Amino acid sequence: MYTKKELHDLRDFYHDQLLKDTIPFWFPRSYDREYGGFLLMRDADGSLIDDDKAVWIQGRTTWLLATLYNTVEKRPEWLEGAKLGYDFLIKHCFDADGQMFFHTTRDGRPLRKRRYFFSETFAVIAFAAYAKASGDEQVAEQARLLFSRCLAYASGELELPSKFTDTRPVRGIGVPMIMMNTAQQLRATIGDERCDDAIDNWIREIEQYFVKDDMKCVMEQVAPDGEIIDHIDGRTLNPGHAIEGAWFILHEAKVRNNDPDLTRLGCKMLDYMWARGWDEEHGGILYFRDVYHKPVQEYWQDMKFWWSQNETIIATLLAYMMTGEEKYAKWHQMIHNYAYKHFHDPVNGEWFGYLHRDGSIAQTAKGNLFKGPFHLPRQEWYGYLLLDEYLKKRLSE
Amino acid sequence: MYTKKELHDLRDFYHDQLLKDTIPFWFPRSYDREYGGFLLMRDADGSLIDDDKAVWIQGRTTWLLATLYNTVEKRPEWLEGAKLGYDFLIKHCFDADGQMFFHTTRDGRPLRKRRYFFSETFAVIAFAAYAKASGDEQVAEQARLLFSRCLAYASGELELPSKFTDTRPVRGIGVPMIMMNTAQQLRATIGDERCDDAIDNWIREIEQYFVKDDMKCVMEQVAPDGEIIDHIDGRTLNPGHAIEGAWFILHEAKVRNNDPDLTRLGCKMLDYMWARGWDEEHGGILYFRDVYHKPVQEYWQDMKFWWSQNETIIATLLAYMMTGEEKYAKWHQMIHNYAYKHFHDPVNGEWFGYLHRDGSIAQTAKGNLFKGPFHLPRQEWYGYLLLDEYLKKRLSE
Repeated sequence: MYTKKELHDLRDFYHDQLLKDTIPFWFPRSYDREYGGFLLMRDADGSLIDDDKAVWIQGRTTWLLATLYNTVEKRPEWLEGAKLGYDFLIKHCFDADGQMFFHTTRDGRPLRKRRYFFSETFAVIAFAAYAKASGDEQVAEQARLLFSRCLAYASGELELPSKFTDTRPVRGIGVPMIMMNTAQQLRATIGDERCDDAIDNWIREIEQYFVKDDMKCVMEQVAPDGEIIDHIDGRTLNPGHAIEGAWFILHEAKVRNNDPDLTRLGCKMLDYMWARGWDEEHGGILYFRDVYHKPVQEYWQDMKFWWSQNETIIATLLAYMMTGEEKYAKWHQMIHNYAYKHFHDPVNGEWFGYLHRDGSIAQTAKGNLFKGPFHLPRQEWYGYLLLDEYLKKRLSE
Repeated sequence: MYTKKELHDLRDFYHDQLLKDTIPFWFPRSYDREYGGFLLMRDADGSLIDDDKAVWIQGRTTWLLATLYNTVEKRPEWLEGAKLGYDFLIKHCFDADGQMFFHTTRDGRPLRKRRYFFSETFAVIAFAAYAKASGDEQVAEQARLLFSRCLAYASGELELPSKFTDTRPVRGIGVPMIMMNTAQQLRATIGDERCDDAIDNWIREIEQYFVKDDMKCVMEQVAPDGEIIDHIDGRTLNPGHAIEGAWFILHEAKVRNNDPDLTRLGCKMLDYMWARGWDEEHGGILYFRDVYHKPVQEYWQDMKFWWSQNETIIATLLAYMMTGEEKYAKWHQMIHNYAYKHFHDPVNGEWFGYLHRDGSIAQTAKGNLFKGPFHLPRQEWYGYLLLDEYLKKRLSE
């Protein structure tokens, strides 16, 4: 169990890491005052390795800066940064057909568009948080409209070209998960009356189709009826991702006055996937596993990625705060200690992204096409606020 | 330098590995006599992990079996296998628009189509080798027609949908390389008078645009005018791939009576990319490097893949046989010893596909969506025939 003193220290640790280590690595040097948006592809020491812009990460960074402004401190430079991100997204990241791009040049010329709508979901949370920070009702309207478009993609009403034929239809956990979190962010910032029902539906979808009590696991994809697809891709588990889904559900339980059913569901998902993903030999959460312990297609399956650890730190802490169960405090301590020891760069700040299974560094970049200021600062921000709220409540009791 | 005795032993080693270790791992158990084609996705012990079919590998396997029949021994079971492969390719792997699929179910229903034409190039060499083995002139005609289609894709006359916009046009080494090898195989089996000129053009394209004497490297992609694109993708080198290109050119030099210019070009490419790819610390060829030694996007960049080693074994041996330079004998010994020590599975035969940088096994599959009976048996087959021809010539002198 964590003592009150330990929880205090942990709150201060997340607060200080966020504001004195992670955020200063990125800002203000990443603000692109010439073209808008952010220059985020950086090596360990912060030097720029590429001036291209990854649209997912432009959106996530905008969300982060606006969220810090909304929830931590009204620092003008954070609002300025959020505006830079918003401007870039709105000016350069939408194609004429309404779909967003995935990757652009520094000055906003499109390089690549993908057959997913995750650029869109990250733009929704960016617009929503920036709308709240700026008080601009027009931006709030843009967030709600883009969320409508995401709802249409998610329901299939709006179709994207598919990578696969119709031969073996697949249902992925990615869409209900990301939509749940998008709706949670929308609700927390500018509000949208569609959110509660939609979140209910996505949680039911996850529980009904992806959570397998007989196998004690959370599938990444299944057949439309929830059956396990017994091929390499269909069997592949992504423990860090499922654990992220677990804490989105625990967060929902918390918002709904500690709803016991949602708490049980979130904890169960965490339990199953901790058992699947924790590396007993070296520590940390492994990237991919096969549900039947067969070889995984992806050769990097036993690497440790930064974000799987971030999501597990949040999930274990939240499970502990919600249930008081000692097991979760222990797990939180294990993953927190492993991650800050192996991923954190004490010389330049921030975390490395990619470790070999044994914890050695595989690649030194702090930012690239897929890594930027999101999972780590979100974890530190969420942990700080969660602990701060808890400690303040205890103080007032 | 290798002594004559050592060359003899090496010839016998490749011969025996091929016919007593590699081939028996795959056949006859992988023949799918029910649906045609091959069941190749297998774990270390040969157990099937997936009954799907990867079209690239169905084509490559057909090529291998027909080629063994054409060049090593007229074993009826190899001809039977090649026919199974040919039948599956022709019946199930072409879409109505003429483009080939990438991935099908066991019974040939399409799962995925990609925006490349490599399924097509592997089908050309499969058809050509099987046409020679079977003497079926209709199959030869199919090979030539499909080669025409590949020529049209390569020249841009036939367009495939692009993953990227036109913002930053790119020229990749993959197309001239694979087309050169496809033409070499076509010429060696059923002949096609277009091949010599076409090969000349692709070699000129590689030399002019991708071989950088100032940087001492072979680029994987460049701008249309050959400039290095200074972004993460543009800077990424693939040493094993460039070394494969080097031996395609050395092979062409050999076919053309030891053409000295082509020999110099092939050796230069090998020299540059050995220096870039050989792992001084652990041995073996690394997967990706950055031309300016910056971090590579792909997190598995420092893993060792089976095929990079296979291509380097061929290239170093061929460079040695062509030039007699001691350096190449030494490199050949280094890569041969490293690879057979770390990749070969002495218990079940064949090679593992994916090692960590330190040589430990990352993933136990012998076959999956990208690995099958191709690079390893091709290396053993090529090495055996090369040495056999050389030793017979020495004997007759």
